[in-house]
Amino acid sequence: MKMNKVFITNYSSTHFSLQNIEIKSIMLSVVQKLILNSRIPKNLIDGILVSSTSDSKYLAAQISESIGVQPKISVTIENLCSSGTNAIVAAFAYISAGLANVIIVVGADLYDTPGKIFATDESRGNYKHPIFWASLFTKAHKRKYNTTEYDLAIISKKNHDNASNNPYAYNKKTYTINEIINSKKITDDLNILHCSKLCTGCSAILVMSENYAKQFSETPICIIGIGQNTVSPTFTKNDLTSMESTQKAAMAAFSMCKLIPHKIDVAEVHDAFSICEIMAVEDLGFAKKGCGATFSNELYQTNNNKINPRGGLIGSGHPIGATGISQTMEIVQQLQNNAGKRQIHNAKYGLVHNMSAAATSSTVLILTS
Amino acid sequence: MKMNKVFITNYSSTHFSLQNIEIKSIMLSVVQKLILNSRIPKNLIDGILVSSTSDSKYLAAQISESIGVQPKISVTIENLCSSGTNAIVAAFAYISAGLANVIIVVGADLYDTPGKIFATDESRGNYKHPIFWASLFTKAHKRKYNTTEYDLAIISKKNHDNASNNPYAYNKKTYTINEIINSKKITDDLNILHCSKLCTGCSAILVMSENYAKQFSETPICIIGIGQNTVSPTFTKNDLTSMESTQKAAMAAFSMCKLIPHKIDVAEVHDAFSICEIMAVEDLGFAKKGCGATFSNELYQTNNNKINPRGGLIGSGHPIGATGISQTMEIVQQLQNNAGKRQIHNAKYGLVHNMSAAATSSTVLILTS
Repeated sequence: MKMNKVFITNYSSTHFSLQNIEIKSIMLSVVQKLILNSRIPKNLIDGILVSSTSDSKYLAAQISESIGVQPKISVTIENLCSSGTNAIVAAFAYISAGLANVIIVVGADLYDTPGKIFATDESRGNYKHPIFWASLFTKAHKRKYNTTEYDLAIISKKNHDNASNNPYAYNKKTYTINEIINSKKITDDLNILHCSKLCTGCSAILVMSENYAKQFSETPICIIGIGQNTVSPTFTKNDLTSMESTQKAAMAAFSMCKLIPHKIDVAEVHDAFSICEIMAVEDLGFAKKGCGATFSNELYQTNNNKINPRGGLIGSGHPIGATGISQTMEIVQQLQNNAGKRQIHNAKYGLVHNMSAAATSSTVLILTS
Repeated sequence: MKMNKVFITNYSSTHFSLQNIEIKSIMLSVVQKLILNSRIPKNLIDGILVSSTSDSKYLAAQISESIGVQPKISVTIENLCSSGTNAIVAAFAYISAGLANVIIVVGADLYDTPGKIFATDESRGNYKHPIFWASLFTKAHKRKYNTTEYDLAIISKKNHDNASNNPYAYNKKTYTINEIINSKKITDDLNILHCSKLCTGCSAILVMSENYAKQFSETPICIIGIGQNTVSPTFTKNDLTSMESTQKAAMAAFSMCKLIPHKIDVAEVHDAFSICEIMAVEDLGFAKKGCGATFSNELYQTNNNKINPRGGLIGSGHPIGATGISQTMEIVQQLQNNAGKRQIHNAKYGLVHNMSAAATSSTVLILTS
């Protein structure tokens, strides 16, 4: 089956902050900036996809009305923390299927979004708050693979360092390894500086069919790999050291574009907590299982910023519905050679890894210039 | 551009009621019945799309976990009252683009869903509640086209009559024209029996690529036409007698399958209020503008039930996220010659018309056996 190619051409974002603002207002400002930057005529915009865990309804139609477009497709797409990449996959599908040509995907959430707590069935008891599964993951990885406090601290240090070069990051402060290890303990295995911070933010990208992308951009970035998977919670399987949905999503994405993990020059991975980055580089195939910490240490010692150059979620903050879009925007900037101080030299292939709720769902996107 | 064909093979639904139930529970029961009826192996299900205006998050992943499937795609899709058909269009896109082969689209809402009031900007003032725009539409149509109380009452009578043959309908009571005209006045132009009733309900359909549809169904129904449009509110245009988004969606859907309106044998149209059915048959092209009432009267006098055979929203009730799925399910039953007492003889082409918020968004689907 031959798919029609789909491209990302432009992006726009707010700074991430703790601002209290109407969800529609923050989206409008970013969408308007995106339209201005991309010089796309409004009458060509035939899709507005919103990614958010806000309770506001009919947001895409409200935005359409406010900016004066009459899209064919206007919906909100929600899948908790991976809402952003799920909306990008939907945009891919609409365009690839020929139902639309020019789609704005805009993701936003406020620091206190109702999506911040996953109110699932009571039987999960204490696992309602993400810190608990992250603690379980951390303890399990330490036990099985001798992952150390120092290994975890390197992830946090590197991502905070990187975020200091990201103009949109919530937290631009940098920390020493000691400050991280000695930061406030939340659980036995989690310090505050190992956690991403829920915040307010909005990011948007412009997705186009091939004809339009070539007409409106000199550097369109092609979506060549898509993998998605939803599994039962990892912790029902007596194995808390790998994220099955991420492994399956990665396999599907690499298979779609016939690439191997070592070809990826730059990646944004879903470091909701430090342990997630170590597990992600393993489950995505960048490092062998159990060698994620060693892999990350080696990159750190050689000043190689290919993983989470914008600072990941730990450094940039986590405005839930915006996160997947913001990750993708970073990879687009990298592949367009437009990432400023964060630029990875000669980046040709980039990867986005976005997940939800203890890695029960994962999305992997592979992009190329 | 050649699209891959997409089919609907099976369906399942609850009765519509005023039941107070957990949104996830009602969805689970319907999805399980659908899987049982269709005999589809669970490992082939690669998409779960939820249509709902509920505030519950991550519903598709929760359902996946509970029924034991590991889909590639699991998201909630929201666009108020047309969430259902928007989710079906998304399923079409995923399958047509080759990202999935077998998708369950499940829509549900409770009678008191937060989607029942569209909390838009304050500037719209009294138009927050749907009854007000429906009153404006009614008054305008009466003034311009001499539409009468009797014309409106016929729509309500016919749809209540039809619902009495729909096992899933909320209200199976039938009414005389006099009872309708003399029912409780809500505004100058709207009686209670001209309004659809928000209720609790869940409907689901199974959507498949061509290979799978032919393997698992002897009567797969093909989605041949899709049209969608979102416009600014009709009432900003000084014309309250037509629904621009419906006109544009219909034009696009008919153009996609190269059919004309007169070829449609059976249609479910979005009669949120009686006036909407009169306007819809005009804006979909079944009747000339201003002749919707005459067209409807003629069908009624000749016992022709081709419009809203299941009783529409007025007869069946309106469980918001389920409505578009339930409408589509009726058309699938009709085209599979499986609609029992409601069967339209020799139905070959069917149409679904679903809309949101004073017709600011509309979706039109055209199906064939």
